[in-house]
Amino acid sequence: MSSYTPPIRDVRFVLTNLLGIESYSSLPAFAAVDGDLIDSIIEEAGRFCAEVIAPINQVGDREGCTRHPDGTVTTPQGFPDAYAQYRDAGWGALAMPEEFGGQGLPHVLGTAVEEFLNSSCHAFNMYTGSIIGAVLTLAAKGSDEIKAEWLPKIVSGEWLATMALTEAQAGTDLGLLRTKAEPRDDGTFAITGEKIFCSGGEHDLTDNIVHLVLAKLPGAPEGSRGISLFLVPKVLPNGSRNSAGCGAIEHKMGIRASATCVMNFDGAKGWLVGAENEGLAAMFIMMNATRLSCGNQGLGHAEHAYQKAVSYALERKQGRAPGSHAVADPLMVHPDVRRMLMDARAFTEGFRALVLWTALQIDLSHGAATEAERAEADALVGLLTPVIKAYGTDRGFETAVAMQQIFGGHGYIAEWGIEQIVRDARAAMLYEGANGVQALDLAGRKVARDGGATLDRFLGAVESDCDGADDALAFFFEPLRESVQEVRTAAHALMTMGKSDPNNLGAGSYAFLQMMGMTAIGWMWLRMAKAALPDRDEPFFAAKLATARHYALHTLPQVPMLRRKVEAGAAVLMAIPAEEFLRG
Amino acid sequence: MSSYTPPIRDVRFVLTNLLGIESYSSLPAFAAVDGDLIDSIIEEAGRFCAEVIAPINQVGDREGCTRHPDGTVTTPQGFPDAYAQYRDAGWGALAMPEEFGGQGLPHVLGTAVEEFLNSSCHAFNMYTGSIIGAVLTLAAKGSDEIKAEWLPKIVSGEWLATMALTEAQAGTDLGLLRTKAEPRDDGTFAITGEKIFCSGGEHDLTDNIVHLVLAKLPGAPEGSRGISLFLVPKVLPNGSRNSAGCGAIEHKMGIRASATCVMNFDGAKGWLVGAENEGLAAMFIMMNATRLSCGNQGLGHAEHAYQKAVSYALERKQGRAPGSHAVADPLMVHPDVRRMLMDARAFTEGFRALVLWTALQIDLSHGAATEAERAEADALVGLLTPVIKAYGTDRGFETAVAMQQIFGGHGYIAEWGIEQIVRDARAAMLYEGANGVQALDLAGRKVARDGGATLDRFLGAVESDCDGADDALAFFFEPLRESVQEVRTAAHALMTMGKSDPNNLGAGSYAFLQMMGMTAIGWMWLRMAKAALPDRDEPFFAAKLATARHYALHTLPQVPMLRRKVEAGAAVLMAIPAEEFLRG
Repeated sequence: MSSYTPPIRDVRFVLTNLLGIESYSSLPAFAAVDGDLIDSIIEEAGRFCAEVIAPINQVGDREGCTRHPDGTVTTPQGFPDAYAQYRDAGWGALAMPEEFGGQGLPHVLGTAVEEFLNSSCHAFNMYTGSIIGAVLTLAAKGSDEIKAEWLPKIVSGEWLATMALTEAQAGTDLGLLRTKAEPRDDGTFAITGEKIFCSGGEHDLTDNIVHLVLAKLPGAPEGSRGISLFLVPKVLPNGSRNSAGCGAIEHKMGIRASATCVMNFDGAKGWLVGAENEGLAAMFIMMNATRLSCGNQGLGHAEHAYQKAVSYALERKQGRAPGSHAVADPLMVHPDVRRMLMDARAFTEGFRALVLWTALQIDLSHGAATEAERAEADALVGLLTPVIKAYGTDRGFETAVAMQQIFGGHGYIAEWGIEQIVRDARAAMLYEGANGVQALDLAGRKVARDGGATLDRFLGAVESDCDGADDALAFFFEPLRESVQEVRTAAHALMTMGKSDPNNLGAGSYAFLQMMGMTAIGWMWLRMAKAALPDRDEPFFAAKLATARHYALHTLPQVPMLRRKVEAGAAVLMAIPAEEFLRG
Repeated sequence: MSSYTPPIRDVRFVLTNLLGIESYSSLPAFAAVDGDLIDSIIEEAGRFCAEVIAPINQVGDREGCTRHPDGTVTTPQGFPDAYAQYRDAGWGALAMPEEFGGQGLPHVLGTAVEEFLNSSCHAFNMYTGSIIGAVLTLAAKGSDEIKAEWLPKIVSGEWLATMALTEAQAGTDLGLLRTKAEPRDDGTFAITGEKIFCSGGEHDLTDNIVHLVLAKLPGAPEGSRGISLFLVPKVLPNGSRNSAGCGAIEHKMGIRASATCVMNFDGAKGWLVGAENEGLAAMFIMMNATRLSCGNQGLGHAEHAYQKAVSYALERKQGRAPGSHAVADPLMVHPDVRRMLMDARAFTEGFRALVLWTALQIDLSHGAATEAERAEADALVGLLTPVIKAYGTDRGFETAVAMQQIFGGHGYIAEWGIEQIVRDARAAMLYEGANGVQALDLAGRKVARDGGATLDRFLGAVESDCDGADDALAFFFEPLRESVQEVRTAAHALMTMGKSDPNNLGAGSYAFLQMMGMTAIGWMWLRMAKAALPDRDEPFFAAKLATARHYALHTLPQVPMLRRKVEAGAAVLMAIPAEEFLRG
């Protein structure tokens, strides 16, 4: 019941018909990208994920990880072998810089492959996914020595990497962290403290593990301005064991095959990455990459859950269609089952387009010809990062829950595998900045800080696509234009009300993020509908247009409702004294 | 971390200030009901649940049930002892008929106690909760012999009961079942077949277990008109073991301490309950009681999750309130955290009122003075049963998920207990008729069948309360009146469109059910706001009014949006050919 079919046809549609990535050949990473390369990568990656990774997903959940008394951790059956195949095939290095041994292909292609990995086994990708952020951070902030010594082995997959940020008292609020870094005579630092929620902090997949650790130097400023980033390996360059070890692994709701470690650093040797006290900026490089990957997890879960529900709905016979004389018809005949499946199509296909569009902007932010183009792409990525992380994982989880619903009582039984997807998907809403924190990031840093200028350009782009659309798409561009206007009104309300009371910004932030998610995905649906229109007689393209219509009827009407929530403000939320929340 | 505080103050407010149950003393069950009795029952039940039942919740989840090779099942540590205390204290018999040894108290009081049990340990209440439906069914349909022989021991808690309905190929569609009942010379029947998802089918809490089994007599009509109900005990009256045994227990997402059994009936001796081939009607007595209890599970989970989140939000310090100079403030200062807590208050308090109001209607349907009053109460219960089951469990789960979100990453870790509530709560949306089936029941049987007459009377009652409200409550009765109008419009659309294509009824049913849930709870909020208005200077009543305002600003705006979904109809859902749903 672990069958998973990589959605090759849909990915190809997005990369080719929608994004036209073959047309970017003037960018270095895209020089070799043509239809054949796209096909061979997504087909081969899809086959690898379906055949090698998907089969370890359920057994990984059942077995979980085991920490032994000596602090070593064993991953479930099949994980080391699957990782060896992954590393040897070079999947991790696909979009990594050539300078450090990567294949230097576009991030947008790496992102497409990442979806397949997330669908196949989220827990497996907890080990492999974190190297993207680590490589970006080290490449941007590391000294030449650090880059030369550590990056090639991470890029090749010989070693894996972690982020060791959180402490028991310091989660969202990293300014509260206590781990200390003391300078040593040789220019390195002695790192001492306890980190929690360190994914892949210890495992048996690679000989060495490179931890990126946030810590405070003596006399550092209070709060988040006094944090520095250090590279702390499990095994030192001289081959001896560093004093960094796993103290415990957590018992979690899901992604049980991912070792979530309590890590003890006891004067462990570390190297400073970037400038002293500028760790937060370095951390954000890592975090932003991770947040986009996180949204892609929501997509992976929703897609896999959708596929399971479709198989079930085609096979399971209960009840009858109106007028049917069969003993029983497949669930697929029931409109309420179709409603859930159509919601799932509308989310997965639309969000896939948004995730890949944003990944392309990352490529443009590095490789576009002019500084202005690069800056604009970067600003759009910044605006959409919290939306992709939070809206993507919220809807990814919701979709998994709805797909589980199609199984009725069987959805609750472990053997079907659908309840695992729900449990696994839940994690992505909580980690890498809980989704409420993403909403604050969007409302405060990404919208209010520049007075809504980036947002305006984004909304302008959506409107201009509405203007240029065929009248046959009026069913879509009319409500989408209304959504744009609602987002504009809501942003104005947020900023105006936020000036009179900063709590108003927080109060409306979550509803605002939902509006942005719906509108951004709506934009992609308009563009997909445009791309599908000429071929509307073919079933695949006809289905695209039908799904766009569903999105217009079932998702876009939520946007005006959410604007009302934004406008409701903080007063009603803060009215009740804190202690009155307790029951008695 | 298993602490649970029974919401005594709020239950008392609903029973006394809102429902005024002391004023029903002309009804037999209410003769002894006064303020002292109410207080002593809810306080004592609350203490029992907090002290005896809540402590077995987490250990039950960790250990689960064990089936031994001989087919016996051991429940987790502490369950047999907690059950013995529950039985000896007579909690199960509280609202049971005096005729069979019950205390004959109002159903509304039993329902209040049931919420505490659900909050404390859903899995425990899976064993004890099913006897309500079994007693009602046997009392209504059983012969005098059956009633005399079996009911007193079930009512006293000496024996527990199950519903054995589902088969592998027959879930929602019971017409497909295959279990056979063959008449024997002594007037009993030999029951043969396999049932699945039989909760409490085997356990170590009682010496005997009474199964209510649906089966088909030889030559019975096809489909659901050919089903009969049988009583099949684990142990026969002569003390010998019946040939009904547990073949396996399921591995589930949650409620792991509840033994969900595959039951094999191998010519087991059974007694017919009610008339031949009229099992479905008997089953519905059981099912309707269970569906209301199921909604109460949603309430129990939401309440318990809310309490955990409140404790965490008061203690956990991350970030700062605007203008604060503290190192860090409790999460409670953040408006987005407040938003989730206020949503949870608005749901739990409003839904508690609706559940108890409906339970009172059940009492009135049995005991009101005139046939007309009894029939009207019964019609309202029928209308609201699918709403309470589906809307209550959907929002119960959603609330648990939102409360988990307040914990950030810690919410994903088992030791905090919040992720268990999410896993447990998920079950109630799936069983006893998946929530989509409830929506069909509402749209088809409860609304369309009588041309909307019962619905009209319900909506008329809501409007009349809007008319009679103080102008100080205009913030509430204005949007509520709008909601009533939206429900009316949606019901008209459902029925009209349903006539041209029956699929339209199914297509809009789920959104319609949400509208009904929001409006019915909105009605309760209006009535609670009225009751709170005179004492608005006291914190408890001020909080009621603030929460009503939150409901008006954050929940009621969803109603017009949902009406648009109802009107969207079936065409868009059925447009894509079934096979095009498959990926490739």
